[in-house]
Amino acid sequence: MCGIFAVYNHKKAAKITYEGLFGLQHRGQESTGIVTSDGSKVYKDKCKGMGLVSEVYVETNKEAKEGQVALEDLIGSMAVGHVRYSTTGSSSEKNAQPITITHKNDVYAIVHNGNLTNYCKLKSKLEDQGSVLNTSSDTEIILHLLIKSRKNSLEGKVYDVLEKIRGAYSFVLMANDELIAVRDPHGFRPLSLGKLDDAYVIASETCAFDQIGAEHIRDVMPGEVLKISQGYEKSVFLPERPHKFCIFEYIYLARPNSYVFGEYVHGVREEFGRRLFKEHPVDADIIVPVPDSGTYAAWGYSQKSGTMLKFGLSRNHYIPRTFIQPDSRSKGVELKLSPVKKILRDKKVVLVDDSIVRATTMGKIVRMVKDSGAKEVHVRISSPPITHPCYYGIDTPTKEELIASSKTVEEIKDFIKADSLGYLSKEGMLRCTRRCKKEFCTACFDGKYPVL
Amino acid sequence: MCGIFAVYNHKKAAKITYEGLFGLQHRGQESTGIVTSDGSKVYKDKCKGMGLVSEVYVETNKEAKEGQVALEDLIGSMAVGHVRYSTTGSSSEKNAQPITITHKNDVYAIVHNGNLTNYCKLKSKLEDQGSVLNTSSDTEIILHLLIKSRKNSLEGKVYDVLEKIRGAYSFVLMANDELIAVRDPHGFRPLSLGKLDDAYVIASETCAFDQIGAEHIRDVMPGEVLKISQGYEKSVFLPERPHKFCIFEYIYLARPNSYVFGEYVHGVREEFGRRLFKEHPVDADIIVPVPDSGTYAAWGYSQKSGTMLKFGLSRNHYIPRTFIQPDSRSKGVELKLSPVKKILRDKKVVLVDDSIVRATTMGKIVRMVKDSGAKEVHVRISSPPITHPCYYGIDTPTKEELIASSKTVEEIKDFIKADSLGYLSKEGMLRCTRRCKKEFCTACFDGKYPVL
Amino acid sequence: MCGIFAVYNHKKAAKITYEGLFGLQHRGQESTGIVTSDGSKVYKDKCKGMGLVSEVYVETNKEAKEGQVALEDLIGSMAVGHVRYSTTGSSSEKNAQPITITHKNDVYAIVHNGNLTNYCKLKSKLEDQGSVLNTSSDTEIILHLLIKSRKNSLEGKVYDVLEKIRGAYSFVLMANDELIAVRDPHGFRPLSLGKLDDAYVIASETCAFDQIGAEHIRDVMPGEVLKISQGYEKSVFLPERPHKFCIFEYIYLARPNSYVFGEYVHGVREEFGRRLFKEHPVDADIIVPVPDSGTYAAWGYSQKSGTMLKFGLSRNHYIPRTFIQPDSRSKGVELKLSPVKKILRDKKVVLVDDSIVRATTMGKIVRMVKDSGAKEVHVRISSPPITHPCYYGIDTPTKEELIASSKTVEEIKDFIKADSLGYLSKEGMLRCTRRCKKEFCTACFDGKYPVL
Amino acid sequence: MCGIFAVYNHKKAAKITYEGLFGLQHRGQESTGIVTSDGSKVYKDKCKGMGLVSEVYVETNKEAKEGQVALEDLIGSMAVGHVRYSTTGSSSEKNAQPITITHKNDVYAIVHNGNLTNYCKLKSKLEDQGSVLNTSSDTEIILHLLIKSRKNSLEGKVYDVLEKIRGAYSFVLMANDELIAVRDPHGFRPLSLGKLDDAYVIASETCAFDQIGAEHIRDVMPGEVLKISQGYEKSVFLPERPHKFCIFEYIYLARPNSYVFGEYVHGVREEFGRRLFKEHPVDADIIVPVPDSGTYAAWGYSQKSGTMLKFGLSRNHYIPRTFIQPDSRSKGVELKLSPVKKILRDKKVVLVDDSIVRATTMGKIVRMVKDSGAKEVHVRISSPPITHPCYYGIDTPTKEELIASSKTVEEIKDFIKADSLGYLSKEGMLRCTRRCKKEFCTACFDGKYPVL
Repeated sequence: MCGIFAVYNHKKAAKITYEGLFGLQHRGQESTGIVTSDGSKVYKDKCKGMGLVSEVYVETNKEAKEGQVALEDLIGSMAVGHVRYSTTGSSSEKNAQPITITHKNDVYAIVHNGNLTNYCKLKSKLEDQGSVLNTSSDTEIILHLLIKSRKNSLEGKVYDVLEKIRGAYSFVLMANDELIAVRDPHGFRPLSLGKLDDAYVIASETCAFDQIGAEHIRDVMPGEVLKISQGYEKSVFLPERPHKFCIFEYIYLARPNSYVFGEYVHGVREEFGRRLFKEHPVDADIIVPVPDSGTYAAWGYSQKSGTMLKFGLSRNHYIPRTFIQPDSRSKGVELKLSPVKKILRDKKVVLVDDSIVRATTMGKIVRMVKDSGAKEVHVRISSPPITHPCYYGIDTPTKEELIASSKTVEEIKDFIKADSLGYLSKEGMLRCTRRCKKEFCTACFDGKYPVL
Repeated sequence: MCGIFAVYNHKKAAKITYEGLFGLQHRGQESTGIVTSDGSKVYKDKCKGMGLVSEVYVETNKEAKEGQVALEDLIGSMAVGHVRYSTTGSSSEKNAQPITITHKNDVYAIVHNGNLTNYCKLKSKLEDQGSVLNTSSDTEIILHLLIKSRKNSLEGKVYDVLEKIRGAYSFVLMANDELIAVRDPHGFRPLSLGKLDDAYVIASETCAFDQIGAEHIRDVMPGEVLKISQGYEKSVFLPERPHKFCIFEYIYLARPNSYVFGEYVHGVREEFGRRLFKEHPVDADIIVPVPDSGTYAAWGYSQKSGTMLKFGLSRNHYIPRTFIQPDSRSKGVELKLSPVKKILRDKKVVLVDDSIVRATTMGKIVRMVKDSGAKEVHVRISSPPITHPCYYGIDTPTKEELIASSKTVEEIKDFIKADSLGYLSKEGMLRCTRRCKKEFCTACFDGKYPVL
Repeated sequence: MCGIFAVYNHKKAAKITYEGLFGLQHRGQESTGIVTSDGSKVYKDKCKGMGLVSEVYVETNKEAKEGQVALEDLIGSMAVGHVRYSTTGSSSEKNAQPITITHKNDVYAIVHNGNLTNYCKLKSKLEDQGSVLNTSSDTEIILHLLIKSRKNSLEGKVYDVLEKIRGAYSFVLMANDELIAVRDPHGFRPLSLGKLDDAYVIASETCAFDQIGAEHIRDVMPGEVLKISQGYEKSVFLPERPHKFCIFEYIYLARPNSYVFGEYVHGVREEFGRRLFKEHPVDADIIVPVPDSGTYAAWGYSQKSGTMLKFGLSRNHYIPRTFIQPDSRSKGVELKLSPVKKILRDKKVVLVDDSIVRATTMGKIVRMVKDSGAKEVHVRISSPPITHPCYYGIDTPTKEELIASSKTVEEIKDFIKADSLGYLSKEGMLRCTRRCKKEFCTACFDGKYPVL
Repeated sequence: MCGIFAVYNHKKAAKITYEGLFGLQHRGQESTGIVTSDGSKVYKDKCKGMGLVSEVYVETNKEAKEGQVALEDLIGSMAVGHVRYSTTGSSSEKNAQPITITHKNDVYAIVHNGNLTNYCKLKSKLEDQGSVLNTSSDTEIILHLLIKSRKNSLEGKVYDVLEKIRGAYSFVLMANDELIAVRDPHGFRPLSLGKLDDAYVIASETCAFDQIGAEHIRDVMPGEVLKISQGYEKSVFLPERPHKFCIFEYIYLARPNSYVFGEYVHGVREEFGRRLFKEHPVDADIIVPVPDSGTYAAWGYSQKSGTMLKFGLSRNHYIPRTFIQPDSRSKGVELKLSPVKKILRDKKVVLVDDSIVRATTMGKIVRMVKDSGAKEVHVRISSPPITHPCYYGIDTPTKEELIASSKTVEEIKDFIKADSLGYLSKEGMLRCTRRCKKEFCTACFDGKYPVL
């Protein structure tokens, strides 16, 4: 999971990108980077850092501490920016994006959200030809293929690359004086186009536009190669393929206030909650959301059921990304949640959350709620059991670690020690959106991978 | 505002204190410190740092970066810890607590929450006698008075000090092999005693006990001087004075799941919300809490009014403590909030928050909600207008900056451009708790300062 | 051992002090500090650091890394600066000088070279009176005594202090708008006064004046209390006491080009060398100095003997202050010296050095020279055997560690495995200066401590 | 200028390399790096740093500060290490060596001293083929050519590379389990082979062997490709070419105790001094070396002339690599030298140094000596005027900056304001070594570049 952002033709391109990335921070907290161009020079040195956008960037060099980047050094009216999610084992500044490449007199910078499924094959072929790859990231492959293209125009080179790569990808490529935004033909990941006065802006989610006060124009279309250059946009399209939008953007990934795949995210989540009640009703005393992931679905469940929503779990505001392993009793430290005991005591509680991965966290929450005196704890999940890993850009664990890949719902219920457990059905979930069911990728729930 | 924590007789005293402070982080994010004792030696070097508990401490020296503290260096079964709120101008490691003093062969460490009102007089007197004060903090004064006492026992020395100091104070003093916890006779600030197996723990709020799995035994009483030594607790009491509990702990400061002054905080807040509806009803479409401060009062308001609660404002999870000043349009950056437009559009909205200080933030929120298409915005505040600064340990701004000190409610309504504005009355607020009205300090609302 | 420097009335006071301290770097490499005053404000925060002058200071904040100090922050036309020698166990920024104290509205800064012999007694008395001492340094005592004085003028306060302290001390005290330079009545440590245009400068050694292009006017006299204020100097004197100049300044401490106690240092060293030949002649092939400490004495020895000086030991230019412990064979790493084998091979060598402390280093050098093929190695030392520790400001080890305190010259010769060993006699040494023999402190050679 | 070091088959390979590099520190102070291999894995991450060997490396992770490398992380019995000289504009960690490349499952590390003269042509060709170069260094080219080779064995690949590259090069290449040391057919730069028990060691200069207690076996021969693998050494040779040893190694670069091109360096330098007297005698009072570069030549000059050597210039021990620009008067700061006035006063002085580049430093030294009261200052240089830049690995400035490229000796004498100036003749210089004159490269003195 990553968030990407780009600006064309704004005199404060780096600053706008910084603010846009801040709005996309939920898509990646491991590292961030911004590369700018003034039309002739690309500013790519000292532009990345480990950590949050607000930790890495400062306004001036004078303020900058070790490891921080000063926005004043990022000159020019074009920019591409990135926030990166922490994936196991490869957390280092080397893998932070944008990735840049210098070839003869040209500099290219790329920001990418997705995953190339034929990465290994491409890598091996490039190495046979004597190419040297510096990262373990598929994003670098795109750049190496680009400089090998014999086409003259940048869009020509990009088209050459797209004919070779497969998988889920939304990326923006910046050359000295042009931007090219690309979304794969299946449209797995969202990518939106906006305007801020005379500037074009591109972002993974529309919430980034709200952050900077920009207007959402339209989405970059599946299969579209959108070039912005000399003040104009121009598009070519890859051959059409079936839409395969990632349903998990609705379930968990996107911010509730984003407009994704033609709909507001929170609205879909509330509908998930209402549907979930229909499929798995409980005659409970209170509905308690697991903050903040379960909030909107819990609201829908509460509304449909007529049972009162109560804030029985309180979230710590100061959530660290790393934390010293707590001693056994200190469940809250790990969970970043505290029980509001008086609300939970002697109640028949419905806990609503968006999904279950390994079930260890949910097990701890159930125990914490029971320890607080709840009579019964009924867990309701606003998505189906996750049984398969994602190969399209989400860092789900291996199949072995996914509890639903080897256990039945009944067994999971026992594992988390809940009084009952109900998942939203796949069928029910897909009915909650306005789109045709076939337009979504549901591989994580059924193992039907559209591209391999 | 600060949070204090102490442990007596636990083999992982530093670790327990670390976790306890994590649970008190909302009381102060500027700096933190932990000092331990193994009964003969006090570990006081390299024990403090600027920033959050989770940023300052790491488990081992091997992991420690510049400015970080390794818990493994903090040896012993006794500890005192502190989190400090950012106050204007004096944000530096020098003022971080615990403050320690070495006098002959004795080392004392203190953690303090409160404010001494006769600080200037005491300071001047000490300097006349040739004492050298290293900080601008009133906490240091307590230590200097302590070592000037001719009493032999530590409790004797402390009693000497208490006869000299005035104001609001809850503090814990650690000597080589004993702890003394003190709460001023008015009881302004909370201070609670708990047990974790054979260990005693002391904390500003009971939520810290939940964090570590400890049991809340009782509060340290107003005027109590509680000594813990050789495995036993022993108390003496200062002459009795009228209770003056800080009502703002209920309104904003304490965590909803804490048990403060004899009651759960979230329960009082819900009651504030219900009462607020009775005093200032609106026939609205939706009730929207300002997250997270307004959440429980909004719930009470919604429940009493029968109007639906909706999450029309979404809070950014990655809230930086410092942020580059955004460009004018980027309201959300500053507010750390995003509007959920579809929820707000064409609605008559009641916004519920806990208090208004300068009104600039609320003005921005109202504008953001209106920009999102709300038809009407009615602001409801679950406390009275703040007209006077606090001299008892809360960093309120000067009187001039408090909007309610110079403007009427009608004028504030115009300033924030709301369609209506209703504050909970002082009378109404005080009725929401179980205690007698006179037991609370309400100086910030009426200027009646109990101690000067 | 320390070096002190001060400036009065120079618009670039911090810069001049920086350059002066660079010239005094040989007197201390552990830490350094500069405090300035603009006549009303004393700039004392972020002014010190661990390491060399050239490592700690940079010109502007923009260049400053973690732990570095920007000269541009040190404002004003007055300054005091210090370089500190590494003493066992207390190497920390807290003990770095200048030490400052804030008392009421006054700020004092002090830089000190020397050692108070009644430190413990003074400390105990101050603590009985309730004073809190923050460092383990005798320098802080001076400041505490100062603020306890009831005198009105600064010179009056200083005089009060001097009546209480004993030992070896050369210090400069800076108040808001005046400087006071003091040298103890015995004159143990050097202290010189110079002028640079209209500015006064004060330094431990005259080589610092050469560094900045200043003129050496005269020495601060033993027992002199020299006040510089309003552009004028004014002196009072303590009661006269016998001179006790530190002979070790001539032997090792001072730079060869300094003018100390009325004579150039290198001249005295050459004379030591000539005298050493007279007392301990060898009919050798070559005279080899141990660089750089033995250079001038070796030259004198060579000149008097007529035997050729040859550079048979080469010094590494990049001498680290700390170094990973080398494996056993790598003698040179530790010694920071390399043998020039072809020069030493088959030669009868006289090695000349200034002194022997523990004899371990000399033992390694002798072995290295023999391993390089020298036929015979005759060691000649241009000072007597060191048998007693110094209590007047030099960090000699304890008596037990001084090899000459327990071994005869013959035994030391065997220990270092030299073919012969000759020390300059105390009598002979004292004849090499122009001063009367009684004017020198020779306690490290004979245990006759002039002040206790 | 750089220094290279390598170890094969020593259980403390990293430590030995560290000590060896310490002994080569004079060949480069900008950056340093060590890469090790345990036979199957190459340890190449976090292995380099800016600054001196003693600053970059620490023994354990626990001690390591920001930017430092722990030797304990550098595992294995093989290692290559490097110290790099500061060249204008390209001082960054990216250009620090060893440079490594990962290709498929192979990792190669290289350390290089020299300069490829056909670098630009090779670079352009590689880029045309789609290679991406990450540094501006010619060393990286060697690695890219290597992985393009279709040969199977490493020595085969290296041979392929050597057929393509031209210029001056001494390098060591490390693959998983073998080392290959190469010296160009002209032998411009030295490279020596040694043994330490069962381990092979390779170093730019033999002084590194003395440092670690290793034995010097022989030099790597011009044109030799020496492979060390499975405990054995094996060599192949490039076609023979005329020897072109760098005479500047004798003049300035190498340490006096190194054995270079078949002779001890200090011996050649003394002979330069004797010859210099013969060519340019002065009837002076004293001979003063410019420390430390002029020391041995001054000794030879003094010996031949019978005029006394005196240490009239004293060198500061704490030489910073960067220093704040001093004010105009502070000549010594810049020069890192202090005059010993009493020695120089009223004397007719011969100053001896190794070479003159821009002449600004020598101008300052002459002025300093005259300001100290010298009657006459005669400058003698133990090498001919430098008129041309070096293209074989020494960072001489451009031709324009070399004073002797545009000024006669008489004009230079006037520029530095000396009373006379004498350079050693090229003819005379070449006679001072045991080798045939034609075996040396003297391009910096005559512009006759042997390879272009």
